[in-house]
Amino acid sequence: MKGNSPLSPVLLKLLSLRLLQSLGVGVRETEAERDQEEIALERMDAVRAAVDVQDTAALDALLDPLHAADIADLLEQISPSERADLLALWHGGIDGDVLSEIDDSIREEVIEALPEAVVAEAVRELETDDVVDILEDLDEPAQEKILDALEDADRAAVEQSLAYPEYSAGRLMQREAVIAPEYWTVGEAIDFLRGAEWLPDQFYHVILVDPRMRPTGYVTLGRVLSSGRSARLRDIAEDSFRTVKATDSETDVAYIFNQYHLISCPVLDENGRLAGVITIDDAMNVLDEEHEEDMLRLAGVGDDSSIQDGVLETVKSRIPWLFVNLLTANLSALVISRFDTTIEAIVALAALMPIIASMGGNAGTQSLTVAVRALATRNLTGANALRVVRREAAVGAINGAAFAILMGGVGALVLGMPLLGVVLALAMVINLIVAALAGILVPLGLDRLGLDPALASGTFVTTMTDVVGFFAFLGLATVMLL
Amino acid sequence: MKGNSPLSPVLLKLLSLRLLQSLGVGVRETEAERDQEEIALERMDAVRAAVDVQDTAALDALLDPLHAADIADLLEQISPSERADLLALWHGGIDGDVLSEIDDSIREEVIEALPEAVVAEAVRELETDDVVDILEDLDEPAQEKILDALEDADRAAVEQSLAYPEYSAGRLMQREAVIAPEYWTVGEAIDFLRGAEWLPDQFYHVILVDPRMRPTGYVTLGRVLSSGRSARLRDIAEDSFRTVKATDSETDVAYIFNQYHLISCPVLDENGRLAGVITIDDAMNVLDEEHEEDMLRLAGVGDDSSIQDGVLETVKSRIPWLFVNLLTANLSALVISRFDTTIEAIVALAALMPIIASMGGNAGTQSLTVAVRALATRNLTGANALRVVRREAAVGAINGAAFAILMGGVGALVLGMPLLGVVLALAMVINLIVAALAGILVPLGLDRLGLDPALASGTFVTTMTDVVGFFAFLGLATVMLL
Repeated sequence: MKGNSPLSPVLLKLLSLRLLQSLGVGVRETEAERDQEEIALERMDAVRAAVDVQDTAALDALLDPLHAADIADLLEQISPSERADLLALWHGGIDGDVLSEIDDSIREEVIEALPEAVVAEAVRELETDDVVDILEDLDEPAQEKILDALEDADRAAVEQSLAYPEYSAGRLMQREAVIAPEYWTVGEAIDFLRGAEWLPDQFYHVILVDPRMRPTGYVTLGRVLSSGRSARLRDIAEDSFRTVKATDSETDVAYIFNQYHLISCPVLDENGRLAGVITIDDAMNVLDEEHEEDMLRLAGVGDDSSIQDGVLETVKSRIPWLFVNLLTANLSALVISRFDTTIEAIVALAALMPIIASMGGNAGTQSLTVAVRALATRNLTGANALRVVRREAAVGAINGAAFAILMGGVGALVLGMPLLGVVLALAMVINLIVAALAGILVPLGLDRLGLDPALASGTFVTTMTDVVGFFAFLGLATVMLL
Repeated sequence: MKGNSPLSPVLLKLLSLRLLQSLGVGVRETEAERDQEEIALERMDAVRAAVDVQDTAALDALLDPLHAADIADLLEQISPSERADLLALWHGGIDGDVLSEIDDSIREEVIEALPEAVVAEAVRELETDDVVDILEDLDEPAQEKILDALEDADRAAVEQSLAYPEYSAGRLMQREAVIAPEYWTVGEAIDFLRGAEWLPDQFYHVILVDPRMRPTGYVTLGRVLSSGRSARLRDIAEDSFRTVKATDSETDVAYIFNQYHLISCPVLDENGRLAGVITIDDAMNVLDEEHEEDMLRLAGVGDDSSIQDGVLETVKSRIPWLFVNLLTANLSALVISRFDTTIEAIVALAALMPIIASMGGNAGTQSLTVAVRALATRNLTGANALRVVRREAAVGAINGAAFAILMGGVGALVLGMPLLGVVLALAMVINLIVAALAGILVPLGLDRLGLDPALASGTFVTTMTDVVGFFAFLGLATVMLL
């Protein structure tokens, strides 16, 4: 064929370009990212070399200038044995910030590798929310070691935070807050701040409180700075003021930060008094973790699995869903085995049936993913659920019809069996409608039950489309072709 | 059986509880979320009723107290015709903030439904980055309408931002920044801020610049407030100071904010001079969009699809990947059709082959998702890629062996065909190893090529596991059973 039909390769190329475009293919990685990765790799090689020759001075020179987050990344990316060697040799830079930054999956290992004095020193400089974050995932003895290292007041504050339920605002907040009585003037506030012995590392607002320590509003530092000394804080407070309760879930807290673009938010105890403050970096962390959870759950992976996990942890996080899948796959097998005489009569069916199932699985995953994401961002609610379900049904029908014509044509013309074409077409329509509906109804149903919609997971929806696909295709074939 | 064997139901229940736990099943939706949804639903009904009877006073009472983000949500969740009716009747509260908050997918529709004067008034009060954000997704004539509404200085600033490439820091930044010469004292800075005619809505830092307007550091407002009037700004500047270039990609910007917990970051032009500032809410938006993109791409859905899209838009965003899937599914069909004589001889194979394929597809999706996520968070790099690939191979082999024993036992004992059991077991091991490797190597390869690893998408990995699964199973059956 080469050279004989110059039109068709050009057309093909144009078509495939068009297809690539509509698939959203584009270059993602940037030059800056590539540069950074190269620098990080070179640094890592230099660190390895320095550890090999026990050159602590070289390690200091390499690691001391790094941000805590970058030191944590380096520790995460080297192997466990390299990590142990490095920590045995060098722990000057392992301060509280590095411990905070490091991934949960290796934090316990790192803490155990460090001398007790280094850990004690590290946690003492942290704010209470960071200490709580570190403590949460540790075993009892490791927790005790860290609590013992804290000053009494800090220890009490940390223990109070830990008394709140896991994944609550109380766990997320730092107890250190900058507050002022609402009747103060700007001048009084500035004088107070100038005289304060201790202030949080980062603070963006002054929280106004009444005499019973109940927050009544907040003033941004920008307003404090740009107002005259005699202005009353209550007169320059912001209009909108939101608080959360210490028992609110961290999911709700993250939603409020994201929805209302908050930078920090006061947390109230059961009596409406100020218990602490949550800042945006904590809220961002929660959002990030929930994204990850949704993605991993959709794929049927344990939601605390990480790229740093060892082989056995990884097996443990993946095998439960594979087991579920094995059970559900047996359902499909059961359906197919009911039609063994049909398949015996027309073996071509065995080759065609995975096409129907695979199209259904794909379409179902599409609906499912959009639905899970919309539920997580609270864009799919009782208000529009019915409209979205109707839309999914229509989309399923249209896509089904489009691929029915295509597959029907293939069956009729290529395979030379018109009736087989009709069977393929009908099965395709049925399965794509069922797929679209399963993809939206399963997560919606789970959500109504108060369960995480991401649990719907590929596995369940794919099973449904497999079973329906095989049944529709083989059933129709039995009725129409035998 | 009922009642005869009390042990087995109890055991089953225990086992299934254990399984549910290891699947991570837990209640996700919170009480607060449920309450909020109910309030939102009631409000929506009230709004609908008010629109029906054309009661603008009632609409004012219902909508005016709402945050712009909540008004935007309400507009997104009602149907297009309800939206048109509402906007025709009530546009008092549609200010710049609402236009900023509203989803891209319906923003153009909303802007077209509003009187020009309302749009003009709305955009005039926005900061430049928000105007750019709104303009980006509009058609040329709608863009012109908005540019015309701006004051000359703002229009010039917006057009300068639009001159930067899409998805660059230059598009993300606001041009309004609070700056001070580094030699100023705290007192001079405070006096300047008190006298300033205009300040950004939110600012958290004072950026220090040299006489050529090149940023040299920053001071947090907290430090300004807590230092004496005579302190020099340069002496209370923060240690670590990061800037981005206006041409940097927004992906890199979001990464820097997340990695180093920034609240705002100066943007430099090609000469190293201050061009603007990016604040954390913009960076959070980018992170959010990229998460969504990864999730949707993995599922083979167009990455700008939204729950608000109409039927035809949805069809358009989903059909390309379904078409790719159809092509790849035909590959599987081709493989199966090569073994038609084998299937004719042993029809049971037709029922069992989807089990092997489905297990492979599931395991592949697990590896793939973990890999795509780790690449996005830059936790999977050249430094640990090899180790992760080795781990995946080991995990695939262990999971393969576990399910090989299970399926082999089923084949041998339940189906009474020991050799079929061996075939099932071998095919399972082969396919789970291939699945685990495909799940990591395909996204890693795409990443090396500078493409988005999420494009690996369920489709490709599933095809690979389907083809290998069918081939291994039917091939082994042909050799060993015929």
